[in-house]
Amino acid sequence: MARKKNSSADVTGPRIRSAALRLFARHGYAAVSMRQIASEVGVQAGTLYLYTPDKQSLLFDLMQNHMQDLLSELAALPDVQSPLAELQQFTRFHIRFHRARSDAVFIAYMELRNLEPKNFERIEAMRRQYEAHLEGILARGKAERLFDLPDTKLAAFALIAMLTGVNTWFREGGRLSLDAVEEIYWRMVKKAVGG
Amino acid sequence: MARKKNSSADVTGPRIRSAALRLFARHGYAAVSMRQIASEVGVQAGTLYLYTPDKQSLLFDLMQNHMQDLLSELAALPDVQSPLAELQQFTRFHIRFHRARSDAVFIAYMELRNLEPKNFERIEAMRRQYEAHLEGILARGKAERLFDLPDTKLAAFALIAMLTGVNTWFREGGRLSLDAVEEIYWRMVKKAVGG
Repeated sequence: MARKKNSSADVTGPRIRSAALRLFARHGYAAVSMRQIASEVGVQAGTLYLYTPDKQSLLFDLMQNHMQDLLSELAALPDVQSPLAELQQFTRFHIRFHRARSDAVFIAYMELRNLEPKNFERIEAMRRQYEAHLEGILARGKAERLFDLPDTKLAAFALIAMLTGVNTWFREGGRLSLDAVEEIYWRMVKKAVGG
Repeated sequence: MARKKNSSADVTGPRIRSAALRLFARHGYAAVSMRQIASEVGVQAGTLYLYTPDKQSLLFDLMQNHMQDLLSELAALPDVQSPLAELQQFTRFHIRFHRARSDAVFIAYMELRNLEPKNFERIEAMRRQYEAHLEGILARGKAERLFDLPDTKLAAFALIAMLTGVNTWFREGGRLSLDAVEEIYWRMVKKAVGG
């Protein structure tokens, strides 16, 4: 948050972010007021402004944190040796990361329309970085003739959409465990890129 | 629309739907008032209520029309002989139908949260019918040992998400024509389901 540094004892910043995330996901950014967010946190509207200059900054912070977490967790994955192993790791990572953050994923896609141009550019740059990572895996596999893909960029878009789609239907405690779902999706991904 | 039947001379109903679609897609359902919709159409708020009892009915009408169009165009596709040809036809149809209606697609996914339970159930039933159509193709291909799919339901979800994803990045006049995109996606779909 912009104006006030969090100390370890200060839990208000994270509580504001979490309330904003919940309210934006439920009602949409444009329909939520700073007053409602303050009320959800249980503070005065004035207190909210100690933590964030305005609603746009709050939205941007949420999206930026989401993308930063995504990129840093991706970078922290253990090294694996082949494009096929990398793709398998990416598949499982993508499903699991996004599944655990359905509100943030929903907002990251839906509220792009409400980012100011400069903020939009920064979020888009991070998203492109993530897509480029997958495209790199696909290009290496193509170079090694493991993968047969006429267009690695489109394949990256297609796979990311397919994997993120798990969020629209997966329910904890349903017919299949997330692990089983990852396995079934991996099988399809592997065949889709295969030679 | 609920209260007033459209005559062929009456263009207000369609203009209301089209304005609501545009405004909901731009700002989100919760942030748009009936007054704003009336103003966008260029009629008094009172006139709007001659066409639709409330905003919820308008949202439901938009989603229902979208799903009805989808199901009726799907049903009108020419008969083809094999599950593989059916799947190819479905792939191209899905991309093309959704691409031409990006606002309606956006709303159909994003504003499910704002449907009242009874309306939600009706839209969900139509969506399930569409998914079941694809699952039927996949199951027939599996029965004929053309397709190797451990779970036809998940495969249907995965393919639909992948194909709808074209809307997030495709731009008319970009690097690839929609026809070329359809061909590249079809190649991936065919491999993903293949034996």
